[in-house]
Amino acid sequence: MGTKTSDIEPPRLGEPYLLTPGPLTTSYAVKEAMLRDWGSWDNEFREMTHKMRTQLLALLGPGKSEYDCVPIQGSGSYCVEAMLGSFVPKDGKVLVLANGAYGLRAAQTMECLGRAYKLLNKGDYLPPRGDEVAAILAEDPAITHVLIIHCETSSGILNPVEEIADVVHAAGRKVLIDSMSAFGAVPLDVERTKYTAMVSSANKCIEGVPGFGFVIARTDELEAAKGNSHSLSLDVYAQWAAMEKTGQWRFTPPTHVVAAFLVALDAHEKEGSVAGRGARYARNRDVMVEGMRDLGFETLLADRWLSPIIVTFFCPASPAFDFHKFYELMRDRGFIIYPGKLTVVDSFRIGCIGQMDEHVMRKVVAAAAQALAEMGVNDASPPQAALDERKKLAA
Amino acid sequence: MGTKTSDIEPPRLGEPYLLTPGPLTTSYAVKEAMLRDWGSWDNEFREMTHKMRTQLLALLGPGKSEYDCVPIQGSGSYCVEAMLGSFVPKDGKVLVLANGAYGLRAAQTMECLGRAYKLLNKGDYLPPRGDEVAAILAEDPAITHVLIIHCETSSGILNPVEEIADVVHAAGRKVLIDSMSAFGAVPLDVERTKYTAMVSSANKCIEGVPGFGFVIARTDELEAAKGNSHSLSLDVYAQWAAMEKTGQWRFTPPTHVVAAFLVALDAHEKEGSVAGRGARYARNRDVMVEGMRDLGFETLLADRWLSPIIVTFFCPASPAFDFHKFYELMRDRGFIIYPGKLTVVDSFRIGCIGQMDEHVMRKVVAAAAQALAEMGVNDASPPQAALDERKKLAA
Repeated sequence: MGTKTSDIEPPRLGEPYLLTPGPLTTSYAVKEAMLRDWGSWDNEFREMTHKMRTQLLALLGPGKSEYDCVPIQGSGSYCVEAMLGSFVPKDGKVLVLANGAYGLRAAQTMECLGRAYKLLNKGDYLPPRGDEVAAILAEDPAITHVLIIHCETSSGILNPVEEIADVVHAAGRKVLIDSMSAFGAVPLDVERTKYTAMVSSANKCIEGVPGFGFVIARTDELEAAKGNSHSLSLDVYAQWAAMEKTGQWRFTPPTHVVAAFLVALDAHEKEGSVAGRGARYARNRDVMVEGMRDLGFETLLADRWLSPIIVTFFCPASPAFDFHKFYELMRDRGFIIYPGKLTVVDSFRIGCIGQMDEHVMRKVVAAAAQALAEMGVNDASPPQAALDERKKLAA
Repeated sequence: MGTKTSDIEPPRLGEPYLLTPGPLTTSYAVKEAMLRDWGSWDNEFREMTHKMRTQLLALLGPGKSEYDCVPIQGSGSYCVEAMLGSFVPKDGKVLVLANGAYGLRAAQTMECLGRAYKLLNKGDYLPPRGDEVAAILAEDPAITHVLIIHCETSSGILNPVEEIADVVHAAGRKVLIDSMSAFGAVPLDVERTKYTAMVSSANKCIEGVPGFGFVIARTDELEAAKGNSHSLSLDVYAQWAAMEKTGQWRFTPPTHVVAAFLVALDAHEKEGSVAGRGARYARNRDVMVEGMRDLGFETLLADRWLSPIIVTFFCPASPAFDFHKFYELMRDRGFIIYPGKLTVVDSFRIGCIGQMDEHVMRKVVAAAAQALAEMGVNDASPPQAALDERKKLAA
């Protein structure tokens, strides 16, 4: 198969691959861009900021003209908080659709903000569906916005954003999307799904280093967001207005991280933008999942819900299996995996994003096989309780 | 004079020196630390975080045992907001002492938070003094906290922190300090001035790259801060509690920026910590101010208020002088200077911090001389109005 892999090189300083949903393994060229200093007030850096915003908007395709891009210093969760605080008026109400840690964190953010919200908690991995969202909206006219998590990285599930957004719009409400770990690799057509605002971060599918995220929002919604924010630093309107006026970030930007991100954006474009990047990640997932299943491991999710971002595996039933030991054995072999975040059964996660291709994923599977052998785990299949859980999902 | 300069090298990629109060010119070694990736959950990075917190606390000296250090993702203003939102209870009241943009921004933050505050606005550069603060506190028993800006970088003034803190403590109120641009180069004895909390940032006197800041606070005050914050992301208590429990940052940290900061901290220690760093900056200031005065330029502030961080100069009265032209001419010669932030008279600023020594400062002065000649400015002395302003300060 002609998957393009020529640009992928192993970490040059020999550090382990990060099979995690960000920070992730970035190219050396991305990191090399951080070898100089920039003045944040200087014209050169203003042009870098402008270029970044323009390139990010270009990923939206033809529908982009109604949108603008506002970078926000801090982590992805800062951006989610900034979006909720800025686009939901003080007398608004948000329906938070949760099926994992990030949905629950958004609810916690609303709690902290002291603004009204309703939580639909689907547990560890069940996707929120259009019909149940429609029913809640019909029942509660106070709801003004619905927050959808695009890819919930606690389980790795790809939620049905379009299906949900359709019913939200049909009910005359607004859509906010946390596309943190999906944007740049999973298409989301802004002409079809005209969301109010969306957030993602530098160190996810664009493959930059961590230090800021960005909000992509309708320009009319940005204008309407004036005065909503509970926070000076996380005020998306104020950041946008200042940037439009001066070309600068309101407060000191992470200049080096921005420079790295520009290199990452060029590489993303060169790889074929969202389609090309998504194809590599999907191939990473397919090769890795197939190999892990051959070892006896099983995924939490049925194939139809598996994202090309990160995959959750059940821990094997074998008493010889110990996750911390497994983590260390994988790390010794050059792969940092991620612990699980499920509440019901033991699990772990392996990411598919970052500077890795299918050849790397085959090595990941080989390392897992060696780790199992060293622990004396002959059979990596999950406990019955885990399979029972999964059956519920299929129902 | 035996000023230690051997470790200072020019920007290796030929970029201009940043004569700005951050981002600033950092060493190549600091930037080189960013050439690899780290997993934020991994033990290696947790150890880096631990080391960083320990080294920052060590800068406090013997009084450090009552304090802890909490890094916060984002810019310095995020940290100020985090400090105000976390340490000031919802029914507290802050006296904000402002003599420039950063004090006013703190007041704006309180406004945004919807919490009570009183603003003492001293204008562009007059220092708030102990007696006037004592009078306000005597008059308003509702005030629980006083925010002091250590070095107000809009003018470059070094405010009399100890003098003010003494009267605040005598009145039984608490001290919060924005030491953004001073910490690490200007001593502040925590045994003498037992502040509640203080903030600074990675890319100031420690000479790291931008991307996070940190709060240094009394441990008992950190414990008492639970539930105060208006923001999930900027909750200093929650960040501290999670870090104490897991060794991790709550949300994705700027891993590369942290790695760079560790190298910067080692260099800071090697240079002789606060005393050594402060001595180099003071020498930078003295050489630069002397040279600029020789050209006819004059400082806004009298010598006693000049910080070793950044110096404000009046723009020359000569009609041939144009700041934007001057900026470009200085930039062409490899020096990025900073525009002024005064409201009354035209000014510009030259920073003394970052990887620069007196030899560089002499080149800055030479470049300024050439720029004046190229513009046809024979006399760089300020207009009478500016000198009148300064006289007010001396009074």
